Amino acid sequence: MHSDLWVEEKFEDFLGLRLKVEKVLFSGKSEFQTVDVVETKGHGKMLLNDGLIMVTERDEFAYHDMISHVPLFIHPSPKKVLVIGGGDGGSAREVIRHKGVEKCTMVEIDAMVVDACKEFIPLTASALDDDRIELIIGDGVQFVKDTTEKFDVIIIDSTDPIGPATPLFGEEFYQDVNKCLSDDGIVVSQGETPWYGKEIQHSLLSVLNNVFDNTYMYSFSNLTYPGGLWCFTLASKKYHPISDFNADAVDASGLSFKYYNKGVHTAAFALPNFIRDGLQHLLKN
Amino acid sequence: MHSDLWVEEKFEDFLGLRLKVEKVLFSGKSEFQTVDVVETKGHGKMLLNDGLIMVTERDEFAYHDMISHVPLFIHPSPKKVLVIGGGDGGSAREVIRHKGVEKCTMVEIDAMVVDACKEFIPLTASALDDDRIELIIGDGVQFVKDTTEKFDVIIIDSTDPIGPATPLFGEEFYQDVNKCLSDDGIVVSQGETPWYGKEIQHSLLSVLNNVFDNTYMYSFSNLTYPGGLWCFTLASKKYHPISDFNADAVDASGLSFKYYNKGVHTAAFALPNFIRDGLQHLLKN
Repeated sequence: MHSDLWVEEKFEDFLGLRLKVEKVLFSGKSEFQTVDVVETKGHGKMLLNDGLIMVTERDEFAYHDMISHVPLFIHPSPKKVLVIGGGDGGSAREVIRHKGVEKCTMVEIDAMVVDACKEFIPLTASALDDDRIELIIGDGVQFVKDTTEKFDVIIIDSTDPIGPATPLFGEEFYQDVNKCLSDDGIVVSQGETPWYGKEIQHSLLSVLNNVFDNTYMYSFSNLTYPGGLWCFTLASKKYHPISDFNADAVDASGLSFKYYNKGVHTAAFALPNFIRDGLQHLLKN
Repeated sequence: MHSDLWVEEKFEDFLGLRLKVEKVLFSGKSEFQTVDVVETKGHGKMLLNDGLIMVTERDEFAYHDMISHVPLFIHPSPKKVLVIGGGDGGSAREVIRHKGVEKCTMVEIDAMVVDACKEFIPLTASALDDDRIELIIGDGVQFVKDTTEKFDVIIIDSTDPIGPATPLFGEEFYQDVNKCLSDDGIVVSQGETPWYGKEIQHSLLSVLNNVFDNTYMYSFSNLTYPGGLWCFTLASKKYHPISDFNADAVDASGLSFKYYNKGVHTAAFALPNFIRDGLQHLLKN
């Protein structure tokens, strides 16, 4: 491609983020969504679903560190982990860095996302062939309805509640998640941005409050999602995300991180006032 | 304007942030820079200097809360405060909400910025006529060289180190800042983004380390600066930003904030690993 190529993610009708593209590596249309992988100039390889940025090599560590290590260091001994979505493989990659995790089941609805990332973004997808990862191409909603397994940590690594991910924001889904979560289990979900996604946050937290007794929200900073500041919700059957967090276990793990550390773990739950605004009655932190 | 109007801030040659514009309210060229004020669709009124977004009404509280209340709640009794730059008035507005502050001197080099904000962005500029604010239109570099006053807190609310703000990132300037900082004073400076501005952060922290014994960095999330996650540097002659922080004083102040709170104060100093990377030897936190 010799022309000046850019990709733009628009948010509503008033915001656009443009990234310079060197090369289109893959462009397909599955039964669920469009799937594009491009080589960008400043952000490495990038995955877009339905035109929305999912992952860039430059900043994927922030999202994947914070969606996985926060619950995995709150639970004292997570052995069985379930990832719903997360087709790029980054969340599962981080999960199995925890030596105590015996099995990470990953249920991604769209094989095209997995295949495209395996071929073009090995940075996130390289662990997907690991023996401890069971990759199921299927509907996460149906999986949690049908399974008789129990999981210590469940990670809902979904896109926004438009398109294939919509049911992942509903109460019926979380009733089933609750059913297959162990008695001391933790579920973390992609929780949108406080800058532009307050209504979705309110809806998701309301659903979680209907199902779980203890619901929290924590934040991190992403580079390429609209708003930058982004949240995860966390619902816990037993453990408190800070008072039951064993910071020594982070050191003992021997793991190194690009984003996560002991201080960041606790700090992530200290939310700015504008995030709490309108949501405080739904939060335990 | 009936056409589809957008303003775009480009970062290097690989990133652009576009915002929908309803109306151009002001467009001028001072001896220092271009100054534009536009009414945006999604972000309220917005100031741009040399084409770079300085302030939007939607998110200005994040920057102004964190540049001002962090040092003002570390110092136990700040009475005299100096703001260098900050022509939109937002930092000075937050400073004088602290009842103990007797005087806030603000030195802005560009009268056009102040005048444009007074006329078009009263949200940030409305406090500039307050009796406790002494507004000096002049060169901050020269001011700190010449003044014989001492300040408890100095806030360097500058643009990036290109154009008129360049000397505000140099050692000579900070030697003069040190001279007019009281014996238990604190200086906070706009500290760029870890995603794209690492070299400037390294340079600024190196300068600060040459002048001050105790240099820290803290982060917050902005909506419309490239990268979203942004930093302030903090150099302190006496007080530690966390162990000397009196959280009760925040409650006792009776002030309300959109971004800042006691938890956010401490959390802001818990930096993700990729921020610390390459800078840790220059930081006391």
